Amino acid sequence: MSTSVPRNANFSKLQAGYLFPEIGRRRKAYLEANPDADLISLGVGDTTMPIPTHIMSGLRDGAAALGTEQGYSGYGPEQGVGPLRSKISEVIYSGRIAADEIFVSDGAKCDISRLQQVFGSNVTVAVQDPSYPVYVDTAVMQGQTGTFNEDRGQFDRIAYMKCDAANDFFPDLASVPRTDIIFFCSPNNPTGAAATRAQLAELVAFAKKNGSIIVFDAAYAPFIRSPDVPTSIFEVEGARECAIEVNSFSKYAGFTGVRLGWVVVPNELEFADGSKVRDDFNRVMTTCFNGASNISQKGGLACLDDAGMKEIDALIKYYLGNAGMLRETMLDLGFKVYGGTDAPYIWVSFPGKKSWDVFSDILEKSQVVTVPGAGFGPGGEGYLRLSAFAPRKACEEACKRLREMYAGVPA
Amino acid sequence: MSTSVPRNANFSKLQAGYLFPEIGRRRKAYLEANPDADLISLGVGDTTMPIPTHIMSGLRDGAAALGTEQGYSGYGPEQGVGPLRSKISEVIYSGRIAADEIFVSDGAKCDISRLQQVFGSNVTVAVQDPSYPVYVDTAVMQGQTGTFNEDRGQFDRIAYMKCDAANDFFPDLASVPRTDIIFFCSPNNPTGAAATRAQLAELVAFAKKNGSIIVFDAAYAPFIRSPDVPTSIFEVEGARECAIEVNSFSKYAGFTGVRLGWVVVPNELEFADGSKVRDDFNRVMTTCFNGASNISQKGGLACLDDAGMKEIDALIKYYLGNAGMLRETMLDLGFKVYGGTDAPYIWVSFPGKKSWDVFSDILEKSQVVTVPGAGFGPGGEGYLRLSAFAPRKACEEACKRLREMYAGVPA
Repeated sequence: MSTSVPRNANFSKLQAGYLFPEIGRRRKAYLEANPDADLISLGVGDTTMPIPTHIMSGLRDGAAALGTEQGYSGYGPEQGVGPLRSKISEVIYSGRIAADEIFVSDGAKCDISRLQQVFGSNVTVAVQDPSYPVYVDTAVMQGQTGTFNEDRGQFDRIAYMKCDAANDFFPDLASVPRTDIIFFCSPNNPTGAAATRAQLAELVAFAKKNGSIIVFDAAYAPFIRSPDVPTSIFEVEGARECAIEVNSFSKYAGFTGVRLGWVVVPNELEFADGSKVRDDFNRVMTTCFNGASNISQKGGLACLDDAGMKEIDALIKYYLGNAGMLRETMLDLGFKVYGGTDAPYIWVSFPGKKSWDVFSDILEKSQVVTVPGAGFGPGGEGYLRLSAFAPRKACEEACKRLREMYAGVPA
Repeated sequence: MSTSVPRNANFSKLQAGYLFPEIGRRRKAYLEANPDADLISLGVGDTTMPIPTHIMSGLRDGAAALGTEQGYSGYGPEQGVGPLRSKISEVIYSGRIAADEIFVSDGAKCDISRLQQVFGSNVTVAVQDPSYPVYVDTAVMQGQTGTFNEDRGQFDRIAYMKCDAANDFFPDLASVPRTDIIFFCSPNNPTGAAATRAQLAELVAFAKKNGSIIVFDAAYAPFIRSPDVPTSIFEVEGARECAIEVNSFSKYAGFTGVRLGWVVVPNELEFADGSKVRDDFNRVMTTCFNGASNISQKGGLACLDDAGMKEIDALIKYYLGNAGMLRETMLDLGFKVYGGTDAPYIWVSFPGKKSWDVFSDILEKSQVVTVPGAGFGPGGEGYLRLSAFAPRKACEEACKRLREMYAGVPA
């Protein structure tokens, strides 16, 4: 017997499953049919290396302290403990961002959803195409979009900013309509493209001209090695009046399962009525959230001292080593390859092919799990994303299998 | 320079600060004016006792394992790890609820917000009056309500179900209009009232007659000692077709800062169109959330084995001891007192007085922080909530000060 409660109409607009659960289902089905298969995952961007010793000690000692009278803590401030907000201000932003503009959270995905709660249903949004599916899916859930257009493979009322090899994976802003919100991820998931200082200055100028808010997703910032690629949108002049930054410890320190991230909402950022965006975000953080785990926050503090930063540097170098190997392999095989230098993702072109077909082909012939580009929007069709987060040996074995599979095959 | 982005109109409807930050501000102001004051908090329902040894070991070893190759884990299933879902099914629900109907989360407050995201703006809601402010505030944020009516002290389009001494703190359902959603908390925050089996059966019958969904907040279930008070709505026949249950490890084991909770969405629960509520909630959990911390989940597993359950029992008895002492004190002083037997909250009547005035009076004369009933809605006016979560010594000292303050004062 059904209730009489109407289903939220926005949810009926959502398409199929969210990308990674769908890959998980296909992977599971393959393993059920081939129980002895030795699968290697270059799929979901999930870290695999243990948490380095010093940072792990921060977590472990943080947990142990909760068993003592002096060390116990209950509810903390919903915005994160003061010392961690200060440390992020100092270490990540060199003081450019104040501690009270930083909101510590349980991760970037959750923060994007909370930002969408702040924006509500009466805004228009733009996303890169291809892009991380969460921007679009949360926009649909909030009622910011029309229905899904099967022909275009896109939702009505979302502006899709095409990012492909032809425009160096940076949108042609002259052809992008004005929207209230612009989601922008750099280094990009999935393309691995890292926007230069000049490109980000162009983006900020575009937002300011249009009175838009940029939600800048910097979750992959620690992988940046090129000197002309900013690690924060706030390195660009004027960004404080038009941008929010989402960031995370997930990739810094293998915290994907530990859950710790942060959002920067500058004091200057205002809605059209002059009210502060930070105040409404603070309201969501205090009403709909109750703080990141106190244990995770102790781990975050350990990340940001000297010993922790050294461990992070070694970890990032390790994954960038994997990225270089994957990049090399696909280039050797004659593919056009993007990303993988300032980012943990390699974006490989398979012109004229359906990316879910390529995904299945590689799964069946090489037992390697990848991510089909089409899962990130129509602009990802014909591409495959390879993740550099596998352990070194698995990455080497995957490269070997891909070389065997594609050797002699004209790309 | 403001952007041109419209502020979410729902946010401008919200009233003042959320209750507990407001108390925090007043407390801080008092301390600034009286820096030597020795404040005791019977305020926010925050646990203060260290996490017991066995449960703490689960957390600590969970953190340490992340530093090893075998023990490392990254992203887990967004719905929680399988063993924890199974253990909750078995230990808390004696198998009455299946593991895949249980969604592990970072806490009840966050879950209420996520449920509201599922419901969207096109539903009507009912809340107990007084009630935990998060039900109303998230309803306002979602656009489920009209504006705030200053005269009534209530939002338009919310049905407030009066719960006071006259009706034994259980609403007179004959006078409650039909709504899509009914938020119901038992044992209640703030009144401490625990609904009996007969009362909950009445509530379920009411929901089924109206085709409503009950969101049953069972966060205080471990404090129940009376045999005729169910610890779960699913002990009541028919609840699987009309109820969701929100629960938490916060009060079980002092996890307020660790962050771990769960939601039960039964397989049978359907929207009017026959679609499953569980599927939409699953979509929110996978798209807007990324799983509770893997360390917190290891702690949850330690809670639910035999050693953990014994520790929880001792902890709950300790807090119930405090509750008894506070109850006794206020009764001795001639007040009418409710709650405090199956709940950690004591609800004290101050007829004809403004509760914020009583709050200030006690803060100034006794340096004891309480919670004014009006913070939980107009139905809480004239009452004060005392929390039993202080350490024993602080609780004893608070009772002494209250006795001194009120001795000889006719209540």
